Amino acid sequence: MENETKITEIGEVNLNNPIVIEGLPGIGFVGKIVVDQIVKHLNGEKFAELQSDYFPPQVTMKEDGLIEHMKMEFFYIKDFGENNQDIVLLTGNTQGSDFEGQIMISKVLMNYFEDLGSEKIFTIGGLGTGELSERSKVFVAGNNKDLIDEILEIDNTEVRKDEGGAIVGASGLLLYYAQQKGIDAACLMGETPGFYVDPSSAKEVLFVLFKLFGFELDFEELDEQIKVTNERLALNPKFNQNMVEHGVNQPGEDLRYIG
Amino acid sequence: MENETKITEIGEVNLNNPIVIEGLPGIGFVGKIVVDQIVKHLNGEKFAELQSDYFPPQVTMKEDGLIEHMKMEFFYIKDFGENNQDIVLLTGNTQGSDFEGQIMISKVLMNYFEDLGSEKIFTIGGLGTGELSERSKVFVAGNNKDLIDEILEIDNTEVRKDEGGAIVGASGLLLYYAQQKGIDAACLMGETPGFYVDPSSAKEVLFVLFKLFGFELDFEELDEQIKVTNERLALNPKFNQNMVEHGVNQPGEDLRYIG
Amino acid sequence: MENETKITEIGEVNLNNPIVIEGLPGIGFVGKIVVDQIVKHLNGEKFAELQSDYFPPQVTMKEDGLIEHMKMEFFYIKDFGENNQDIVLLTGNTQGSDFEGQIMISKVLMNYFEDLGSEKIFTIGGLGTGELSERSKVFVAGNNKDLIDEILEIDNTEVRKDEGGAIVGASGLLLYYAQQKGIDAACLMGETPGFYVDPSSAKEVLFVLFKLFGFELDFEELDEQIKVTNERLALNPKFNQNMVEHGVNQPGEDLRYIG
Amino acid sequence: MENETKITEIGEVNLNNPIVIEGLPGIGFVGKIVVDQIVKHLNGEKFAELQSDYFPPQVTMKEDGLIEHMKMEFFYIKDFGENNQDIVLLTGNTQGSDFEGQIMISKVLMNYFEDLGSEKIFTIGGLGTGELSERSKVFVAGNNKDLIDEILEIDNTEVRKDEGGAIVGASGLLLYYAQQKGIDAACLMGETPGFYVDPSSAKEVLFVLFKLFGFELDFEELDEQIKVTNERLALNPKFNQNMVEHGVNQPGEDLRYIG
Repeated sequence: MENETKITEIGEVNLNNPIVIEGLPGIGFVGKIVVDQIVKHLNGEKFAELQSDYFPPQVTMKEDGLIEHMKMEFFYIKDFGENNQDIVLLTGNTQGSDFEGQIMISKVLMNYFEDLGSEKIFTIGGLGTGELSERSKVFVAGNNKDLIDEILEIDNTEVRKDEGGAIVGASGLLLYYAQQKGIDAACLMGETPGFYVDPSSAKEVLFVLFKLFGFELDFEELDEQIKVTNERLALNPKFNQNMVEHGVNQPGEDLRYIG
Repeated sequence: MENETKITEIGEVNLNNPIVIEGLPGIGFVGKIVVDQIVKHLNGEKFAELQSDYFPPQVTMKEDGLIEHMKMEFFYIKDFGENNQDIVLLTGNTQGSDFEGQIMISKVLMNYFEDLGSEKIFTIGGLGTGELSERSKVFVAGNNKDLIDEILEIDNTEVRKDEGGAIVGASGLLLYYAQQKGIDAACLMGETPGFYVDPSSAKEVLFVLFKLFGFELDFEELDEQIKVTNERLALNPKFNQNMVEHGVNQPGEDLRYIG
Repeated sequence: MENETKITEIGEVNLNNPIVIEGLPGIGFVGKIVVDQIVKHLNGEKFAELQSDYFPPQVTMKEDGLIEHMKMEFFYIKDFGENNQDIVLLTGNTQGSDFEGQIMISKVLMNYFEDLGSEKIFTIGGLGTGELSERSKVFVAGNNKDLIDEILEIDNTEVRKDEGGAIVGASGLLLYYAQQKGIDAACLMGETPGFYVDPSSAKEVLFVLFKLFGFELDFEELDEQIKVTNERLALNPKFNQNMVEHGVNQPGEDLRYIG
Repeated sequence: MENETKITEIGEVNLNNPIVIEGLPGIGFVGKIVVDQIVKHLNGEKFAELQSDYFPPQVTMKEDGLIEHMKMEFFYIKDFGENNQDIVLLTGNTQGSDFEGQIMISKVLMNYFEDLGSEKIFTIGGLGTGELSERSKVFVAGNNKDLIDEILEIDNTEVRKDEGGAIVGASGLLLYYAQQKGIDAACLMGETPGFYVDPSSAKEVLFVLFKLFGFELDFEELDEQIKVTNERLALNPKFNQNMVEHGVNQPGEDLRYIG
């Protein structure tokens, strides 16, 4: 029996050179929060699903007892932002459970984005620092200097100064695979301690996306999550200390996320 | 040489839309105890065996020095319970030793259950809490709301409230693969600390199955196991404490089970 | 490129229903010491070598700077013991580096032993107890009750009483694969603390083999190794304590062996 | 989708029985520093690149925000050293991320070196000792006694006396695969504590290469790196102690290298 990774489309979809925004589970769940917020508040339409034998061998339970299988989901929004662009949003409840899986799934994703005629790709992630910060910066990397420079004109963005840092998983690989296909791609990384789900960091990334695409979101839900998170942090004075001792979360670890 | 997983049938078997009950080794060995008790006391007839190169590379030793290879075993009981249904019982002494193996074996199992004309699947497991409890609850999850609701009418059953908990291995994957084939399936999870073989939890799951199928079992052997387990726990006042510190057993760890 | 495991024969070999004795690196290096001693003192003739991409990706350095690749080696002795039987001895400097490798290599070994017309297989290993003992017992397991009983008539042999203990790797799998081919096979396990290379345990296994086959060995070299080992143990009063705390060596760990 | 490893040539290259010098990331980054220095100061020309799905699923970020994908790179220098030999230099920013990957990639490398008509191969690595030393020795191992002896005539070279030490990864496997193809190959291992990037050890290996090939390098940059490293070590009096406690770096661990 073959190890399968496949994308199933739900009905027909007609997209015009869409821009892709990827936000899968990862450090601080920054990418997933960002994309979930856009899908939810701007009514992203689900049009495809990716299933893979490289996902962890499990299902999760919903509050009503029904199960949820491991999957990545594709949504689209037509006429998005000030330039009325079509966008494709990728999120999911998992990533490949090992190195081979992350590579194979990213290749399948890239081929699909190419088939959709994607003209640009943004991957969203968290950059774990092990430290609390007043305001999360948004770090930028990419496969095209002009695209990087365009983003760097936006407030609170920066290039990570210590050379050699790695972007792990789909957020990193898609930049490289896009480069091989001549598609511009950049990664926006919200600075985050890395030890908890970080809606504040996601908010900062959203601000950058607002400027890039010219759109806005209702922040009521996200601000409520930020408030709850900050209250928990305040209750735990040793939290920051612990994070430094333990280092940041590594990709592949099991992080529970309530989206 | 290919990595093989195959099912070998012993003689012919003629089953009429059987209901499957799966109980493989897992947390607290709850599933395995449940199915072993039914097989033993209601004379389940072995009709097939699954062998796989995804099993751990080992044999175990029996008391007489003879070896036992790693395997899953299929038993049937005809005219079972108050509705005279055919049931298929799946147990074994192992599960797949890695993620890929658990997925590949679960697919082979599901295809076989479909070939047998199975009309419903129950998977049995333990839900590790890291805490001792007076009486183990039986948690329910499934791929069909009506089936979940039917089970929830039975005493001591409940849906796990914290969304996002995972059911790992065959007990989880079979629910999803059954869903893809249009077969209703539910998982019954006996609440268990997760750090020892837990016959009490298995007994609670059996009570739920009694109600579901209308049958009974002799509990003499199981009650003796419960007594021995409770005596050991009583001798170790720090036991509960330890469990909380160490967390519950993870799937894939080597748990010794005397069935 | 395929993941390869292959056996290369050196010249021609003509064996008459040989008996196989396997002693690969494992717990306490008991199996390897036993087979190395027989090969060395009874002039085993090397006739084949197994190479595999499942071995660790390394070479070792010999004292003269030349490298040694990872391999298993087949030797034969004709007219061995009181019954003038042909025997095949299998040893090596490694085992498969993961579960899949151990299974695939054991299958290749079993097929080869069958091709050689092997009529019986003995696998040799160590059984780690975590405790020092006055005299290492030799535990017996096998796929045939008569063979087990025959061995149990020899002094110092025993069946391991706690059901469920596992024999991991080639020593275990060969018993099972031999059973599938109708070949009798048994495993002799020298009791050993498991934390160091244990020539004393190997000597006890050799005594059992002397009785089984009717042969003898010069023990000068082995006794010297035993003396050195005992001196080291005597220098370290906490040794036994440490072993209990750390548990015994697990298969797959890197154990350095000077054969 | 297949797991791919492929070499892409950039333009045409015409080499005359080149000698290969391999220096991939590993213990103390000794091999990589050595080859990077030669490439940089003697104007090595890049002519090919190896890409593999066995590399870690990541990209790294450069100071300008542009990404760098995981790769191995081939450079050549024509008329190198006092014998005007063609040499091929192999370096990269990664090795295979698991055992299978290290084996498969080393096979691809060896086939390519054979296709290039290579007549000799030198692999460069670090030999981690866990201890600081006044001057790093250069240990030698190889598949040919004459080649080993030739190197041992150079000052500061030595054969590692404790039999059984392993050379892990491409530096070890290439020696063996070269042997299978009848190509002489040796590994030069700079002695290094193993816990930090060690330019001093690399310098000692370079001295040996100077004698072997009859060439020289400008050491200004390397001496600066050595100075910085020594200052850091001086600031940390417990450094040596720590290394002994933690043991040396294992291959496969993530070591950050600034080349």
